Amino acid sequence: MVKTTRFGVIGGGALGGFYGCLLAKAGFEVHFLLRSDAEHVRQHGWKVETPLGDFELREVNVHAAAVTMPPCDVTIVALKTTQNGRLPDLLQKPTSNGGRVLVLQNGLDVEHDAAQIVGPDRVLGGCCFLCSNKVAPGHIRHLDHGRILLGDYLPAPKPNSDHAAAIRDDLVEAGIDAQLVADLAAARWKKLIWNIPFNGLSVVLNASTQELMESPASCDLARSLMEEVRRGANACGATISEQVIQETLDVTRDMVPYNSSMRLDFIKQRPMEIEAILGTPLRQARERGCEMPRVEMLYHELLFLNCKSKQSRLGRGR
Amino acid sequence: MVKTTRFGVIGGGALGGFYGCLLAKAGFEVHFLLRSDAEHVRQHGWKVETPLGDFELREVNVHAAAVTMPPCDVTIVALKTTQNGRLPDLLQKPTSNGGRVLVLQNGLDVEHDAAQIVGPDRVLGGCCFLCSNKVAPGHIRHLDHGRILLGDYLPAPKPNSDHAAAIRDDLVEAGIDAQLVADLAAARWKKLIWNIPFNGLSVVLNASTQELMESPASCDLARSLMEEVRRGANACGATISEQVIQETLDVTRDMVPYNSSMRLDFIKQRPMEIEAILGTPLRQARERGCEMPRVEMLYHELLFLNCKSKQSRLGRGR
Repeated sequence: MVKTTRFGVIGGGALGGFYGCLLAKAGFEVHFLLRSDAEHVRQHGWKVETPLGDFELREVNVHAAAVTMPPCDVTIVALKTTQNGRLPDLLQKPTSNGGRVLVLQNGLDVEHDAAQIVGPDRVLGGCCFLCSNKVAPGHIRHLDHGRILLGDYLPAPKPNSDHAAAIRDDLVEAGIDAQLVADLAAARWKKLIWNIPFNGLSVVLNASTQELMESPASCDLARSLMEEVRRGANACGATISEQVIQETLDVTRDMVPYNSSMRLDFIKQRPMEIEAILGTPLRQARERGCEMPRVEMLYHELLFLNCKSKQSRLGRGR
Repeated sequence: MVKTTRFGVIGGGALGGFYGCLLAKAGFEVHFLLRSDAEHVRQHGWKVETPLGDFELREVNVHAAAVTMPPCDVTIVALKTTQNGRLPDLLQKPTSNGGRVLVLQNGLDVEHDAAQIVGPDRVLGGCCFLCSNKVAPGHIRHLDHGRILLGDYLPAPKPNSDHAAAIRDDLVEAGIDAQLVADLAAARWKKLIWNIPFNGLSVVLNASTQELMESPASCDLARSLMEEVRRGANACGATISEQVIQETLDVTRDMVPYNSSMRLDFIKQRPMEIEAILGTPLRQARERGCEMPRVEMLYHELLFLNCKSKQSRLGRGR
């Protein structure tokens, strides 16, 4: 079967690299926009280790600047949200022929920036459940999972557009566990039930998920944060049942010791995705009259640490 | 004038050492119960640096165990509250002749343990505003301040007993800025307005008071915590006006960079006074129907860090 969809992938980290390589391996034309790894991948290609079967890609369409990219049917945004200020420059060329944008970022309303650029009706979002690391330039190590729950950014009168279904089909064709969701925001809120407490506390308390689950104090605190997020979600129309909290705690207790993405960013002194994961949910809930005092406190603690980390990165640390 | 009051001082740290030495210098009979410094102080006496005029005490009544102490008229408790489990052993002998106990510890309801031992009507408490460090065995460096607000633990029909006034007079005689307060609990709550946010956040965010005041995020957070403490105080009958919060923030902004006592304990891997400073206020407010979610979150964060610090102290750290 001929694969007619042309994909652009903005960002070649653990997520964009992984999904982009699966699409290319399945025969889709994929154009990667890379920064630090561009020259390496151009010369040596991609190397992907995965339980699905290790593979390498030798001939890769690599771009070191957006202007050399062709117009794409689907441009996947796989940057950290802290880089979204670059999107106006990066999206213009690959979306110049009317293509769609699929935002595969963490957090709430992360599609907003792309929607400002190409218009909300051309934007889709995906909520990813992926354990993957980039272990070296051009070298992805996929550990587990990989599901994408995707949907239109604008909930249309009918749940999802034909475009959403077509993209879902392409992803499935590439071996990705992609599923359409009628309410993308609800899926994102549900993921925040984990992301807010465990990304946040792992940074503030300098602890792995295992350490957080072992101590009654932090476990109680994680539960209180989850209850607030659930109230915030419900206030925003994303109904999450009470039992999701206990299920999420149980799953976390059984996880292997794991460093959240925010903790990895903090350890490596990279900017943390504080606005997408905590700031936007806080503001959306507040606009609907729902305060989340503990989430707000975690947000302020993270902002303080992010600022201190930035000062230290710039060599002004004490 | 003959000084007839005999004082016992339980604990020879920066606080007990300082006040005890001032009393001894003024001619009172003072018996120090010391642990690690007992032999040093017995041989070399005390050395006190203070803006009030440096001095040394050569002949000191030092006890390495409570059983050798004589009955005292006033026994000052100057241990960390984390050591209160030892009080039943330590107080028995010096209070055996009906003497009183003056508890000079940080936190709320810290007189409770002494009251269980000698009866509440024999207990007084003092809220201290002292900048002092023990810089070496038997060597106290007093930096600034030193006021003690003291009163009976049990608020009697009339504000304070003759005993409270007599102890106040002795302290003033020794050059200490001691003042009677009608409502000891209210004085302690008012001190908590500073102690809860700045002790707690300085540990969790690993920051000096100056760093906390410089960042809008942590400054907002300190203010929110103060507002909760104020609500908790008011629920417990300790009325604190709204303007105290802004005044406290202003004073803190103008302070020299300062490490809170809790941060010093944390850095030195000593147990932190979490229950006296956060746990008891939380429980008292909750019993009166007032929740303090941010204070509770700070409490849980500190409990987690205290536990981790203990594990590391015991050589089980990761």
